Amino acid sequence: MGGDWGVPVTVPACMAFLKQERDVELVLVGVSDRILDQLKKLGSESHPRISIKHAKEVVEMDDPLEVALRKKRDSSMRVAVSLVKDDMVDACVSAGNTGALMAVSRYLLKTLPGVDRPAICAILPNQQGGPTYALDFGANVDCEAEHLHQFAMMGAALFASVEGKSRPRVGLLNVGTEEIKGNDLVKRAGALLRTEKENGTLNYLGNVEGNNLFDGTCDVIVCDGFVGNVTLKAIEGLGRFFRSALLSSLRSSMFALMGSLLAGSALRSIRERLNPSRFNGASMLGLRGLVFKSHGSADAFAFECALRRAHDAVRNRVMSHISATMRELQQKAGIVVGATEGGAATTGVQEKEQV
Amino acid sequence: MGGDWGVPVTVPACMAFLKQERDVELVLVGVSDRILDQLKKLGSESHPRISIKHAKEVVEMDDPLEVALRKKRDSSMRVAVSLVKDDMVDACVSAGNTGALMAVSRYLLKTLPGVDRPAICAILPNQQGGPTYALDFGANVDCEAEHLHQFAMMGAALFASVEGKSRPRVGLLNVGTEEIKGNDLVKRAGALLRTEKENGTLNYLGNVEGNNLFDGTCDVIVCDGFVGNVTLKAIEGLGRFFRSALLSSLRSSMFALMGSLLAGSALRSIRERLNPSRFNGASMLGLRGLVFKSHGSADAFAFECALRRAHDAVRNRVMSHISATMRELQQKAGIVVGATEGGAATTGVQEKEQV
Repeated sequence: MGGDWGVPVTVPACMAFLKQERDVELVLVGVSDRILDQLKKLGSESHPRISIKHAKEVVEMDDPLEVALRKKRDSSMRVAVSLVKDDMVDACVSAGNTGALMAVSRYLLKTLPGVDRPAICAILPNQQGGPTYALDFGANVDCEAEHLHQFAMMGAALFASVEGKSRPRVGLLNVGTEEIKGNDLVKRAGALLRTEKENGTLNYLGNVEGNNLFDGTCDVIVCDGFVGNVTLKAIEGLGRFFRSALLSSLRSSMFALMGSLLAGSALRSIRERLNPSRFNGASMLGLRGLVFKSHGSADAFAFECALRRAHDAVRNRVMSHISATMRELQQKAGIVVGATEGGAATTGVQEKEQV
Repeated sequence: MGGDWGVPVTVPACMAFLKQERDVELVLVGVSDRILDQLKKLGSESHPRISIKHAKEVVEMDDPLEVALRKKRDSSMRVAVSLVKDDMVDACVSAGNTGALMAVSRYLLKTLPGVDRPAICAILPNQQGGPTYALDFGANVDCEAEHLHQFAMMGAALFASVEGKSRPRVGLLNVGTEEIKGNDLVKRAGALLRTEKENGTLNYLGNVEGNNLFDGTCDVIVCDGFVGNVTLKAIEGLGRFFRSALLSSLRSSMFALMGSLLAGSALRSIRERLNPSRFNGASMLGLRGLVFKSHGSADAFAFECALRRAHDAVRNRVMSHISATMRELQQKAGIVVGATEGGAATTGVQEKEQV
């Protein structure tokens, strides 16, 4: 239901995704008649791998957290996350209100042992042709050093499990590379991460700068959610600016137009590479279940990418890898387990993924 | 002397700038024989509008502030800023250590009345074809709400004087547009800025997001120096990534190559528009004198752009406009003047600019 467009975007995206992935079943959660109308428009009201789970309420993009958590108890968002909690599905994807999705997911699923706060992990393309994982990109606008410490451990665990690289290179986003640089928060976080490096727990590169988000020097880059959110949106804005500048220039003269026609495939491949939709679908990391956040303004292609990200996470059994790696990292780092929410749910999550 | 390249970049940039600007005299401050060697290489050792001011020391990019402030008392940076203080020059441009330049400038020049901390104001291009002024982009990594409040007033004053727009639109960089969004710092700053709006002192638009840095919805965007620095470097990194992706794609096939040749002028205009060098030269705002910071990695063209920015500021008598506007804004806002460093130096600066 969620996002800026709702079912007219999410339902067609689901159909396109099912065409690609033959082994996937989708449960569409929301106001059933609105979902059914969309399915009928696409002639897919009786698709064998689609089921509808009715939820009578919708969390709006501007609803306060209290409304999502306490008032709208039968919201599509809450019902969808409940399906993850009850092991009825392997993962949940939403284009809805980010803060509400995180609050509801955290309330229903709880966090993994050793994780005080879940983080939003975005994937950025880099000049080396690989991905750079960046977190927290919006979940926690006020962070303590210990939170950045945990984000680094979670990010490393995620990268290792999804990308199959045992010791990913982790950097701390800062205003300079020297240890003395930065605000109080990153200075304290840097001290914690240097200890992990000495332990051999993390392959920690030290401070990195904004440009390192794209040059491939790091596999994982850690920052607080305020810096991450502002940076991510600035990147998106600059991308739109560049694409519009490119297109307007190429339409500026007949020569340019002819040139752009000849260079068409190259320019398409650029637009492809620069298309943020390809990287849509951030994982809410540190929860006892798989929840993915699609950009609210995602079009059908972008939402399909978010579905694919969730599917990849399930296939690669990310939850069990992360839980295991986090336990291991915690033991190495000597962090006392159990200081955080919940209890044995971790194994529950692992079982669920084995379904 | 400063920056990553030193005199081999800065001296040629000065010569190119003097060719363009017939009414400008330049004082090159640094180790005289090294500067003279460069001038000789360019056959300009006796240029009528160039003089050399010897300084035997150089502040290195990794020197701690104490070294720049207390140890290297005869550094090119310190001597150059002293020339501004003593009204021997109208403005100073440096590609050196940003923190050191700010510390030395603040120590020697002091801040304007009502300004607790100077800020670095960068200029970004936007989709409307105009500039967006953004501050603080690196001077203050730990800010209070009052500092963001002052940055907003300074940024509005600068934009009004340089761009000739009396009530520039000011936005506060945040993770969302709603008043409830953000970390503690921006929530408190937002409250102060809303008061200025009610006063009619500022044309304050409220919270803006990262993408608004490029869409032209604001004339001035305010953030703390940590967020600003990370965002600026992320933008630069993405710009490099895009340019390299564009060039590699256009070289990827013969058709694409032919196309890119036909579209040459359009693609050049893109590279021109996307070239961060054009926007090199950030003003250190809030000081009792004009100091401009060039990017450390600036090439000769970029450093020339920083010189041009300084020249434009002098021509437009930015110092006197800002001092006047700040006083006016302060009176409207009812801020007590004189609580800050220094005294009558402001008028001194005004006189200097009339030289």
